[in-house]
Amino acid sequence: MKIAITGAAGFLGRALCARLLGRQAPLPIEELRLTDLNLSYRPEHPRVRSFAGDLRDPALRADLVSGGLDLLIHLAALPSGASEGEPGMAKAVNLDAAIALFTEAAAARPGVRVVHASSIAALGPPQGPVVTDDAPLRPTLTYGALKVMLETWLTDMTRRGDVRGLSLRLPGLVARPLVRTGQASAFLSDIFHHMHAGEPFTVPVSPDGTTWLMSVQRCVDNFVHAATLPAEPALAAITLPAVHTSVRALVSALAEATGHLASLASYAPDPRLQAVFASYPPLNTPVAEAAGFRDDGSVQSLAGRVLRQLRNEAAAD
Amino acid sequence: MKIAITGAAGFLGRALCARLLGRQAPLPIEELRLTDLNLSYRPEHPRVRSFAGDLRDPALRADLVSGGLDLLIHLAALPSGASEGEPGMAKAVNLDAAIALFTEAAAARPGVRVVHASSIAALGPPQGPVVTDDAPLRPTLTYGALKVMLETWLTDMTRRGDVRGLSLRLPGLVARPLVRTGQASAFLSDIFHHMHAGEPFTVPVSPDGTTWLMSVQRCVDNFVHAATLPAEPALAAITLPAVHTSVRALVSALAEATGHLASLASYAPDPRLQAVFASYPPLNTPVAEAAGFRDDGSVQSLAGRVLRQLRNEAAAD
Repeated sequence: MKIAITGAAGFLGRALCARLLGRQAPLPIEELRLTDLNLSYRPEHPRVRSFAGDLRDPALRADLVSGGLDLLIHLAALPSGASEGEPGMAKAVNLDAAIALFTEAAAARPGVRVVHASSIAALGPPQGPVVTDDAPLRPTLTYGALKVMLETWLTDMTRRGDVRGLSLRLPGLVARPLVRTGQASAFLSDIFHHMHAGEPFTVPVSPDGTTWLMSVQRCVDNFVHAATLPAEPALAAITLPAVHTSVRALVSALAEATGHLASLASYAPDPRLQAVFASYPPLNTPVAEAAGFRDDGSVQSLAGRVLRQLRNEAAAD
Repeated sequence: MKIAITGAAGFLGRALCARLLGRQAPLPIEELRLTDLNLSYRPEHPRVRSFAGDLRDPALRADLVSGGLDLLIHLAALPSGASEGEPGMAKAVNLDAAIALFTEAAAARPGVRVVHASSIAALGPPQGPVVTDDAPLRPTLTYGALKVMLETWLTDMTRRGDVRGLSLRLPGLVARPLVRTGQASAFLSDIFHHMHAGEPFTVPVSPDGTTWLMSVQRCVDNFVHAATLPAEPALAAITLPAVHTSVRALVSALAEATGHLASLASYAPDPRLQAVFASYPPLNTPVAEAAGFRDDGSVQSLAGRVLRQLRNEAAAD
C-alpha cells in the first residue's frame, strides 16, 4: 500500500508510524509518506519518505498524493487552543487545506480511503443523560466547528464516490506528552504522567468530573482497523467508543496499578474546563462498534495500557 | 437601517424587497443594497442601490458591506440540482464566497445581524417518527452539506461575537415561479400553479407522500421577524416551523379553494424524489417557535395565501 500520514510528528502520528513500521506490521507497506509542519520525527526506514511543510502549500500536497495513494490518514490540525486564538488561520489549515488535500488525493486516485481524525469537539459539550450516534453536533470551539465542517464535506465526497472517507471522532487521548501543544484538554494526560512519576499534582476539575478517554495504543488499533475495514460503516462520520470514567475512578485505578497514593491528586476545579472537558455522560456508539471499533474495555485496562506506554517511552529515552 | 440582500432577484428576494419597500414598510430603511448574479429585478426606489455580480468577486462584496451594514440577508446560492452537477463551484459560491462576505461584513461592522437562508436540505431525508430541533444533520445532497457547513461557521462567528448570525432552515417554499432554476423540489410549487390554472398535471410522488411547506409570504414574515428579534434564539441555526401535509390533502385544499377538481392531479411516483422530497414525518420546532417564528397555520391557510400570491402575480403581469 501507498500510505500518507499528515501530522505524522504529533504524538498520535508517531505511535501510528511505529506500529506500521514495527515487527508485526499490520499493513503491507509499499511506501509511507509522512508530513508535518516541523518534521522532528523522521523514522529511518527504506520505505519512508518525509516531507516537512505546510499543508496550505500546493507543492507539498502534490508530493503527498503524487502517483495516487491507497490510504490517506489525516491527523494534522491547528489544535483547539491555538484555533480559538486565530480562527482565520484555523480555517485555512483545518478546513481549506484539508479539503484541497482530499480533493487532490481523489483526483490522483478516485475512491482512495481517507481516514480523518475528527474529535468529540465536533459534538460540543454533551447534553442529556447519554450521548448516542444521533446526538446533534453543537461545537462551542472553533476547532470543533471546523471538524464538523470537514466531516460534512468528507461525507459528501464519499457519497459522490470521490473518496472512501471516514471521520473518526476521537475522545480524549492519553497520554499526550507533557509538552504543551495548545490542547486545552492536556490536563487529562497530566494525571497519568504525575501518577506514573509518583509526584503530587493539581487537577483543574472536580473528582466527580467525568470524561471519555482512549489510550493512544487503542487509538492506533482503531486507525489500523479503519484502513482495512471489510465494509463501510452506516455513517461516514462516527464517534468512537471510549471509556467513560470519573476523575476519581481514574486516579484510583492509576494508584492501584502504580502503587502510588491517590492522595497525590488535589483538586482546584475551573468551571469552564469542568463544563467543556469533565461533564461527560455515558456514551453509546453502536455504529462504530458494529464496524469493529473498540474502546479500552475498562478504566483498569486503560490505565494499564497507558502506564505501559509511559514505561516504554521512559525506556526509549 | 442599512440592509443588504444577496440573491435579491430570486423569487424569495423579490417578495422580501417588495415587502420592505411596500406601503407598510416593516423596517426603517436608510439604504437597501441588492445584489444578484443577473440582477433582472431592480426596484425603482430612491433608497435602493443595485449591484449585479458574482459574490466570488471581492470588489462586489466590498460594495455590499462598505461603511457597515445593520442587516445582511443572505439568500444567494447555487441551487441544489446545479450543486450536484458542479460540487466544486457549489462550494466556491455557497460556502467560500458566503464566508468571505460574512467576514467582511463583520470587519466593516462588528456584531452585524446576518440572516442566512439555510434549508431543510441540511437535515437530509428525515428519519424517525418526528423531526425535532435535536435531529442530526445528515444531508444527502451537496447543497445540503454546504448549508450545514455554512451554518456551522456562522454559528461559530456568532459565538465569537463577530456577527449576530441566524441560519433559518427553510422548508419547501410555495409557490416558486414555473420557470425551472435547478431546484429538484420544484414539482411541489407546480401543484399550486396547475390547480390555480385548472389544468391537468402529473405529480412525481404518491398522494400519500408528505412534505413540509411554507408560503413565500409567511417566509417573508419570518425574515422580517429575524431582523427585529428582541432576543437571540437558543440556537443560531434553527429549523423553521412548517405545515406538514400529504400531497392528497394539499390537492384537496387547493380544489376546495379554487373550485377545480382534485382529479386534475394524476400520480407517477419516482422513488428517488419520493424518498428525498415526500417522506417527511411531523416536524416539532420549539426553538424557532419560542423565538416567534411561525408556519402558515394549516394547509387551508397555506393554500389561501399561495393562491392570493398567484392572483396578485397574474394581476401584475
